[in-house]
Amino acid sequence: MTTDSPNATPRAQPKQGSVVISVDAMGGDRGPAAVVAGMALSAVKNPEIRFIVHGDHDQLHALIQRKRELAGRCDIRHADGVVTMEDKPSQIVRKGNGTSMWSAIESVKQGEAEVAVSCGNTGALMALSMLRLRKLPGVNRPAIACLWPSRNPGGFNVMLDVGADIRADAPDLLQYALMGASYARNGLDIENPRIGLLNVGTEEHKGRAELKQAHELLTASAEAGNFRYVGFVEGGDLPSDRVDVIVTDGFTGNIALKTGEGTAKLVGDFLKDAFAKSIMSKFAALLAMTSLRRLQKRIDPRRVNGGIFLGLNGTVVKSHGSADATGVSAAIKLAFQLTKSGFQDRLAARVAQGAAALPKAEDSGEAAS
Amino acid sequence: MTTDSPNATPRAQPKQGSVVISVDAMGGDRGPAAVVAGMALSAVKNPEIRFIVHGDHDQLHALIQRKRELAGRCDIRHADGVVTMEDKPSQIVRKGNGTSMWSAIESVKQGEAEVAVSCGNTGALMALSMLRLRKLPGVNRPAIACLWPSRNPGGFNVMLDVGADIRADAPDLLQYALMGASYARNGLDIENPRIGLLNVGTEEHKGRAELKQAHELLTASAEAGNFRYVGFVEGGDLPSDRVDVIVTDGFTGNIALKTGEGTAKLVGDFLKDAFAKSIMSKFAALLAMTSLRRLQKRIDPRRVNGGIFLGLNGTVVKSHGSADATGVSAAIKLAFQLTKSGFQDRLAARVAQGAAALPKAEDSGEAAS
Repeated sequence: MTTDSPNATPRAQPKQGSVVISVDAMGGDRGPAAVVAGMALSAVKNPEIRFIVHGDHDQLHALIQRKRELAGRCDIRHADGVVTMEDKPSQIVRKGNGTSMWSAIESVKQGEAEVAVSCGNTGALMALSMLRLRKLPGVNRPAIACLWPSRNPGGFNVMLDVGADIRADAPDLLQYALMGASYARNGLDIENPRIGLLNVGTEEHKGRAELKQAHELLTASAEAGNFRYVGFVEGGDLPSDRVDVIVTDGFTGNIALKTGEGTAKLVGDFLKDAFAKSIMSKFAALLAMTSLRRLQKRIDPRRVNGGIFLGLNGTVVKSHGSADATGVSAAIKLAFQLTKSGFQDRLAARVAQGAAALPKAEDSGEAAS
Repeated sequence: MTTDSPNATPRAQPKQGSVVISVDAMGGDRGPAAVVAGMALSAVKNPEIRFIVHGDHDQLHALIQRKRELAGRCDIRHADGVVTMEDKPSQIVRKGNGTSMWSAIESVKQGEAEVAVSCGNTGALMALSMLRLRKLPGVNRPAIACLWPSRNPGGFNVMLDVGADIRADAPDLLQYALMGASYARNGLDIENPRIGLLNVGTEEHKGRAELKQAHELLTASAEAGNFRYVGFVEGGDLPSDRVDVIVTDGFTGNIALKTGEGTAKLVGDFLKDAFAKSIMSKFAALLAMTSLRRLQKRIDPRRVNGGIFLGLNGTVVKSHGSADATGVSAAIKLAFQLTKSGFQDRLAARVAQGAAALPKAEDSGEAAS
């Protein structure tokens, strides 16, 4: 899959006191204006942020000039090409050189930025990230992790993989657990995260063969991995306070993620319909405005915006294709937090440690199954 | 799996003008009182319904006597045993003779009732149904279908399989499509249902190998099967008006179902929190009471209560374990509708026709993939 030389490029350290984020400004459904507006929102909140912005120079220059809060904080890198939502990942891997997405990832590869943010085509972004950043030593399948509104004190659970790969074997699921735990510790400040394995029932005899095997692996690895393993969880547990990190294969995770989003949107639409029904209910909606806004904020997908690619030499944050300024800003905030916490190095250390422990854990898994 | 003689028992016709439903009154989380209360609700609405009720005779007799609307309409069959939620299906298959669940299915097998309803353990109910009713000729894997609140004119989509079997090959997915289409025609009055195949993307190159093969099979079989095939659909399409019947394997379907239920419940709880926040919002909630009740009715899982087991010699309706009288009554209503429409015979004919067409369709699928 990769045409790259195996020699790792030494990382340039970013300027002291500043966090550099590489942003692909093209390829989202709302175009570069929404992305630049999101950058401006983040710039106000976090004075340490600087951006390397990739895309059409003239267009970006004009947009950035209009935002005073971005003055002197953006480095524009011109790229002619744009990866569209229709492009196939395999095409982009062969011919994507020259696109803003490729360029944004290249900045991470060259060590100019520690993290890249893009609203573009997920499949292409993953394929390019794999090609240019390469997998972390010890990682077999990288994963995409997302946040899920929940009843946890922090308000969110983590789920992975939500679509990097449609397959996952038991050792892959163990790696997802280690990566998800590291993300929960550094991105969500959960010291000793609770990990659950998504299945069709909580009894030990349920589910597919690889899940039974992963169940043994996770049980054996919890202590060394610094997480608590709570066993199998079901779809209904995704927003629960039983678990902090939900581990599953990318096929199931993607279906669950989109089902959850679709259901929340359906209920929201039904709620709007209900309030629009009569004069009385319209008046009630007016009175309840503050409460309804509070609700909307809790389940607003824009505020949990940002799937993270885990398991590569560098962090990539995938924002929703339809993200507006608020959504882009949420994705940038996540990228900023993770960089500040030194997430990338910690994750790499954790995965290396897990890979070293794996053969032993795998043996015990097979013996027990 | 079956210890049964292969000779089909000839069906006794139910009394003219009446629809007989076999009800397992035990094994639900709320006990027989909730089940009998649900029967009473249904009895008022549908004067043609009669019941054969299975469980502890004395307990049931006392409960039924208290409901005037059930007078003269129930036939009690004593059964000592109860299948609990903790019982493993394999144990029940070996030792379940004498339980109310076994007895309820036996009434369908003997032709005394055309459909059975139970709130009990899903795995055990499926195992017993397979054992006693046996699979319809031409069916490889029976499936559980559920209703899903949606933006469709009728308000519901159908999804299957939601948990009968954790595996499904391409020909199984085709059978699910045929069975789901038959259910949509007879249970939801949709003449020419739109079928979609659940996947992680709508592009033809996406997803697992069996999905690509099923895509070819469904494309080739749509005309003969009297359905419209709309191609791949995603998790976000489950409540959409793009599709009437969503076909998937039982692992993915079960995760999606429970994720959707869990998300709707989360949003509902958040809504309650939001309205309880201030005096103003409490007053608003009071004003909006009618609208909120309307919303609750639209997404109330009790009103879409009833997973249907398809692909057996007889129909079995699985009600939620936690169903109250409203939930049980919804499950009975579904059982009643399907019986009235002659669903079982139509489904059998459709599956037989599909099985006959399958080798041809499969060839074309393999040639194209």
